[in-house]
Amino acid sequence: MDGVGRSVLSTGVGVSRTTTTTVRLTYTARVPRRWASVSANPAAHKERIVILGSGWAGYAAARTLSAAKSRRILISPRSHFAFTPLLASTSVGTLEFRAALEPVRRLGLDEFHQGWASAVDFRNKLVRVDANERGDVSAATNRPQTKGPAYTVPYDKLIIAVGCHSQTFGIEGVPEHANFLRDVGDARAIRLRILQIIETANLPTTTDAERARLLHFVVVGGGPTGIEFAGELHDLLRDDVARMYPELVRHFAITVYDIAPKVLPMFGPELAAYATDTFRRQGIRVKTQRRLTRLRRDGRSLMIRIHGEDDEVPAGIVVWSTGLTQNPLIKTLVESPDPDGQGRSIAKDARTGGIVTNASLQVQLQGSAQQGELGGDGGGDGTTTTTTTLKDVYATGDCASVQGSKYPATAQVAAQQAVYLAKQLNSNQDGPDGRPFRFRNWGVMTYLGGWRAIHQSTQNNLKGWAAWVLWRSAYLTRSMSFRNRIMIPVYWSVTYLFGRDISRF
Amino acid sequence: MDGVGRSVLSTGVGVSRTTTTTVRLTYTARVPRRWASVSANPAAHKERIVILGSGWAGYAAARTLSAAKSRRILISPRSHFAFTPLLASTSVGTLEFRAALEPVRRLGLDEFHQGWASAVDFRNKLVRVDANERGDVSAATNRPQTKGPAYTVPYDKLIIAVGCHSQTFGIEGVPEHANFLRDVGDARAIRLRILQIIETANLPTTTDAERARLLHFVVVGGGPTGIEFAGELHDLLRDDVARMYPELVRHFAITVYDIAPKVLPMFGPELAAYATDTFRRQGIRVKTQRRLTRLRRDGRSLMIRIHGEDDEVPAGIVVWSTGLTQNPLIKTLVESPDPDGQGRSIAKDARTGGIVTNASLQVQLQGSAQQGELGGDGGGDGTTTTTTTLKDVYATGDCASVQGSKYPATAQVAAQQAVYLAKQLNSNQDGPDGRPFRFRNWGVMTYLGGWRAIHQSTQNNLKGWAAWVLWRSAYLTRSMSFRNRIMIPVYWSVTYLFGRDISRF
Repeated sequence: MDGVGRSVLSTGVGVSRTTTTTVRLTYTARVPRRWASVSANPAAHKERIVILGSGWAGYAAARTLSAAKSRRILISPRSHFAFTPLLASTSVGTLEFRAALEPVRRLGLDEFHQGWASAVDFRNKLVRVDANERGDVSAATNRPQTKGPAYTVPYDKLIIAVGCHSQTFGIEGVPEHANFLRDVGDARAIRLRILQIIETANLPTTTDAERARLLHFVVVGGGPTGIEFAGELHDLLRDDVARMYPELVRHFAITVYDIAPKVLPMFGPELAAYATDTFRRQGIRVKTQRRLTRLRRDGRSLMIRIHGEDDEVPAGIVVWSTGLTQNPLIKTLVESPDPDGQGRSIAKDARTGGIVTNASLQVQLQGSAQQGELGGDGGGDGTTTTTTTLKDVYATGDCASVQGSKYPATAQVAAQQAVYLAKQLNSNQDGPDGRPFRFRNWGVMTYLGGWRAIHQSTQNNLKGWAAWVLWRSAYLTRSMSFRNRIMIPVYWSVTYLFGRDISRF
Repeated sequence: MDGVGRSVLSTGVGVSRTTTTTVRLTYTARVPRRWASVSANPAAHKERIVILGSGWAGYAAARTLSAAKSRRILISPRSHFAFTPLLASTSVGTLEFRAALEPVRRLGLDEFHQGWASAVDFRNKLVRVDANERGDVSAATNRPQTKGPAYTVPYDKLIIAVGCHSQTFGIEGVPEHANFLRDVGDARAIRLRILQIIETANLPTTTDAERARLLHFVVVGGGPTGIEFAGELHDLLRDDVARMYPELVRHFAITVYDIAPKVLPMFGPELAAYATDTFRRQGIRVKTQRRLTRLRRDGRSLMIRIHGEDDEVPAGIVVWSTGLTQNPLIKTLVESPDPDGQGRSIAKDARTGGIVTNASLQVQLQGSAQQGELGGDGGGDGTTTTTTTLKDVYATGDCASVQGSKYPATAQVAAQQAVYLAKQLNSNQDGPDGRPFRFRNWGVMTYLGGWRAIHQSTQNNLKGWAAWVLWRSAYLTRSMSFRNRIMIPVYWSVTYLFGRDISRF
């Protein structure tokens, strides 16, 4: 990619670091209206902490950093944080889309740049931003994006929290024809597609054979996202669509495909068996050890080719959730030539492709003599002794890999790392004090549909209705703003009383 | 248009009238969940009353017709009724889009066909439907639509309530570049455009000159829709955008253009002066006696040419609300060859182009000797004596013109006509009893922004905050479903407390 190093300045437009008091993009603190007056934001001589990304890690860092001690600058193509555990609910209309997002501008940041960080000049401490003028909430994963003009933003400290992209394993047709479920725009695209399928199937001109093809809903990937979407979709079809289109019910089918021998590998055998049993009783088929090799459009439906099977499987929609791959920025950064002027390069984790950090989440450099890749768990490995810290640059979440640990790529890890780092930076102007990041596992939880969920933690396991109550209250408590803490139970009540609206937004 | 008369059957697919008990598209009644069990719907030997359109007239007719006495069949490209007075509020984010719509499927109709009625075979009592598989709520006015397969639907009685399209006077560039405000999809398109303009203006690469061009918000048409949108837009800019983008405030400008000498012609001089004065204090410019001749895109902004002015006026968005023109179906119907086999044609109102009805809202035919057009107020005119009634066909709302009356093309007239007609059909199986439709004027009401409104009726005039309270409570009372009666005050409260969300949906 062009523009790394000195050339990052070539756009000729920048926000000046030396004149922070006159920077144009200054925002006053956002406080709830009529609760307090807007506070002035004294900007003199505070460090510019630039955060890349507004996901679990970036948003948590932006919330936790002290506005009194630093200038908080966020760069992200999305002007919001998506509360990912509720996306499946919004995709079937249990919740409004807005309930699953938090606008970053409400954090009262010193600057927010809506765009993609496309390069970093570590020696001059500059980030190149390609503006995102077009898409926002409406944008769906893996759809083409139009980039606007480029400019540079200076930093004193940099937190890389850009997360990962969806993994498609290079399977033909998946980026074009599958739906993903990673942002509010994705949830909206899924919702529109489901309701359009139903409307098409309902036409008097549609044959029964075509109805069966269209009303086959396929989920690829048996992790929590895929399973939860299948459960929510079952609720939508059973509770709402069946009442309005009773003639279509006999054609409904949901299938979950996974390449592994079992779904929900993070759950113990008892809970996984409960999930499988719940799905069986709900009529959701789970097909494991299936490898998809192609996805193509055929008229109004999609055709799925599965390795070792003669016939393609038709479907109306394919929701894809099979894991993660590194963000293009991370690939660019680990190839940055000589980031600190000492002939070294950013250390890359061999397993995940992410950026290697130490236990203080500081980005690590490899010596010039060691050009090989590092093991992410290289704690007891000779190569790790050669890494040094890249000053003032941190990485958190899915795009980072802590030396000596193998944290899962989950929201919990990302948010906890970001909070740890922001508190470190709040307390220690000169960098982390050396106390390492420690992950506290809150357990895993998945909704299965039909008012049933499963929850597993180190303390206990829960299943069924009790886990469902825990699931709802946990998300309510962890939902981020007052606004959504009010609105989410309102939406749940309205859905309970009146059902889901099936208008196509 | 093809397919009128016998050829309407040429699609070869139809819903049989003679076997109503086995028609595929049968829906059971939709009742609030958990409040009652789903009731069976005995379908034998009831008349098929087909309603074309789901606007104020069509929706009111569908709600009022007795499910016990008739089979209610609705044909409309939209699966919802849009509560038009709240569209301006949704376009600026005061309300969620869903609060301004009512899904027609909740009415428990016997059949709903989502598509355009493109022709009517009056002699064989068949409607041709072009299915709408693609757009729904997301569809915006005057944007291209993809039509799906065609099929026919039989009727015993037909209510034509297709409404009007937006009038653009053939002005170059208006259909492509202007935004309309007639449906929820339009409100969404306006909202996305406004927030995108602001984001673009906020980029550090945007010049101040371009900011001024982009942040000029133009409304064309000084009727209640245009004025109310200008007022709501002012609230959004002043209450919410100004807090998050304080540097942009000095560039904001709103201008309302009208070709007439004054805006809000339906209000008396005192209230109109109050509106103009309120707008002046809010900084909204009102420019009357301006005729637009062209609209074109120039880079990121639009350029407006005004008759008699040398320079084009730049704008970021142009919201167009200048009146109505007949729906293409109405043009097709008034040209139907020989609808009753007696060599006559459907009577067309010379002023509006709509279908002429008698005071019972029955569609009128002109004798073959009188091929001329009829005056809509032809009560004292010799030509009206030549009209006869087309049996079992009714027209209501904006597409109809009652002989001897000049009702305004408003929601009130449309809804009252539809309720009158549905009650007539509920009581009189053999057609109307001759008691004529009478319009009861509830007065007119317009929101001006800044918690001020105006209200004028035959009894009294109200302005300011008192009118605003009336405005809110009137819409709340008239809002159609329990769901929205609960949600609208919730949204108002949340907006009051936390401000409007400016995420781009």
